[in-house]
Amino acid sequence: MLVNGKQYRTIWPADDNSYICIIDQRKIPFKFEIEKVFTYRQMCIAIKDMHIRGAGLIGAAAGYGMYLAAKESVSLGFLQQAAIDLISTRPTAVNLSYAVNRIMRGIESLPDNMRLLKAADLANQIADEDADKCKLIGEHGVEIIEALSRAKKGERINILTHCNAGWLAFVDYGSALSPIYEAQARGIDIHVYVDETRPRNQGARLTAWELSQQGIPHTIIADNVGGHLMQHNMVDMVIVGADRVAANGDAANKIGTYLKALAAKDNKVPFYVAFPSTTRDLNTKDGVKEIKIEKRSGREVTHIEGLLNGEVVEVQITPDNSGAVNYGFDVTPAKFITAWITEEGIV
Amino acid sequence: MLVNGKQYRTIWPADDNSYICIIDQRKIPFKFEIEKVFTYRQMCIAIKDMHIRGAGLIGAAAGYGMYLAAKESVSLGFLQQAAIDLISTRPTAVNLSYAVNRIMRGIESLPDNMRLLKAADLANQIADEDADKCKLIGEHGVEIIEALSRAKKGERINILTHCNAGWLAFVDYGSALSPIYEAQARGIDIHVYVDETRPRNQGARLTAWELSQQGIPHTIIADNVGGHLMQHNMVDMVIVGADRVAANGDAANKIGTYLKALAAKDNKVPFYVAFPSTTRDLNTKDGVKEIKIEKRSGREVTHIEGLLNGEVVEVQITPDNSGAVNYGFDVTPAKFITAWITEEGIV
Repeated sequence: MLVNGKQYRTIWPADDNSYICIIDQRKIPFKFEIEKVFTYRQMCIAIKDMHIRGAGLIGAAAGYGMYLAAKESVSLGFLQQAAIDLISTRPTAVNLSYAVNRIMRGIESLPDNMRLLKAADLANQIADEDADKCKLIGEHGVEIIEALSRAKKGERINILTHCNAGWLAFVDYGSALSPIYEAQARGIDIHVYVDETRPRNQGARLTAWELSQQGIPHTIIADNVGGHLMQHNMVDMVIVGADRVAANGDAANKIGTYLKALAAKDNKVPFYVAFPSTTRDLNTKDGVKEIKIEKRSGREVTHIEGLLNGEVVEVQITPDNSGAVNYGFDVTPAKFITAWITEEGIV
Repeated sequence: MLVNGKQYRTIWPADDNSYICIIDQRKIPFKFEIEKVFTYRQMCIAIKDMHIRGAGLIGAAAGYGMYLAAKESVSLGFLQQAAIDLISTRPTAVNLSYAVNRIMRGIESLPDNMRLLKAADLANQIADEDADKCKLIGEHGVEIIEALSRAKKGERINILTHCNAGWLAFVDYGSALSPIYEAQARGIDIHVYVDETRPRNQGARLTAWELSQQGIPHTIIADNVGGHLMQHNMVDMVIVGADRVAANGDAANKIGTYLKALAAKDNKVPFYVAFPSTTRDLNTKDGVKEIKIEKRSGREVTHIEGLLNGEVVEVQITPDNSGAVNYGFDVTPAKFITAWITEEGIV
């Protein structure tokens, strides 16, 4: 998608394949910086410390991480350790283990000298497939927006989204935002309410920035506001991404998604979850009961980054003597989800 | 309640009655500063710009504002203008017009030379009544906490609250926090989950600070977290305040309250609204449909105050080209409220 008018993906190999390029998302929207990743250990840090984040993107990054590991050594012991390290960087999204296991399976039975090339091929394939799937999610999902637009006789469609499930969370296009980009391409009048998404503010920082780069009308709101908007008919649909979707349809997504699903249900606003099929985890039967929820540092709640006189600084926003807990995700029960949108269609 | 071990109210007349003292809540938790208010116009600014906030406190402040107006001039024309100015500082809470109208009714038929004294008496009365009512709310509300504690055989009771309905929102004790202070006094093992309460962070700044000054165990959470906690049995009850309660029981409170009520209902967690009876507005039949919701500056969403190297600074937390809307309150329909706690008892 566009950054300052130029097309980018969120991750790509250098021209000579000697390193992997990523957009350092910690600096957005204040700075746009490309980071060069030379080793799988550096990729582990980039994933763990959220230089990059988002289910699809960390999957692709783990794939490229395996490529970087293979560049270092093709011994199976080394690669298996790399696989373990990459998978353990973040516990909630299923995409990490999907990408890593796919590459391990693809290369472990090959002779030593064929492993690196195969790892590169598979990593590129995983990234391309992610982009292709997201494009298809947009093409399926836009039908919902088109139907709403027809029902409202072309009047502006207001869409609420939580967190960032845009192209920055994937390799390109995004999941929840892909239908929105496709709607823009088709000339439908849309406006997006962007949940700030505390505590890491992925909505206010990333989604707002993406939409702004793409020229899509949008408004940032505190996470507390969505219920009020839905109560007063100011939201036509909610669309969010997912980090893991269980066999029973329960969807793990950024903390706070469940609250928006409850409000949507109470106000008869359709609530969609968009994700590539790789996010589906059939081994997890009951999402609410089984999906492990990542607990992150309380410092993400007690401190926040912002711009002060052109410099990015971190300020403390809570009293000295008060602690904080920080759960990264919650699980929305299937009964609150109107439909699931994947590259295969709308279910 | 306690500040650095010393008892305070949130508002009080100077010893010689020549000005009114307030705690400048914009500086909490980073600084504790007393502001002197000399004129009713200065009081209007203090209310409008939220040096003080909270339904009970702005009611008491409007009462003292009328006293300051009467100190300036006891002409009815002047007092009527002061009444209009004070009432129009904040649109949602009913306490402003309650206090102002009570004083106007009390003094308008008096001879000129009796008006100032009467205004002073009534303003003090309104403040004292507010404190007394809040104390009673605590004594009624604690019964609920005691019952939960008995049911859990003395195990720790986890209480979630949103925004600040503590003593800082009233003259003393608070509404939602009053039962919690009473529970502490009775030796019940309690812990409070404090919603950060974006965008003004009254939970993270004020409630956490109050609880910390009072020595009550608490944990700050992002507003997004409550649903997850309730889904996993980590919250025994929710208690919030209210800015206006309609005849049908619908309660206007800080934006985001409604989302917590939905989560409480979905997870069978009892949800209480605590307020002095002055917050009840029988002229409003249907809260969701009729209560006017204050829209505040988007800057409260795009910028935030915090501590940087010991200095309070304001930083920008959103992209340059993204706007924000900022609704101050939402209305929780009566059907989601387990009980209403007032100084008269539990309904």
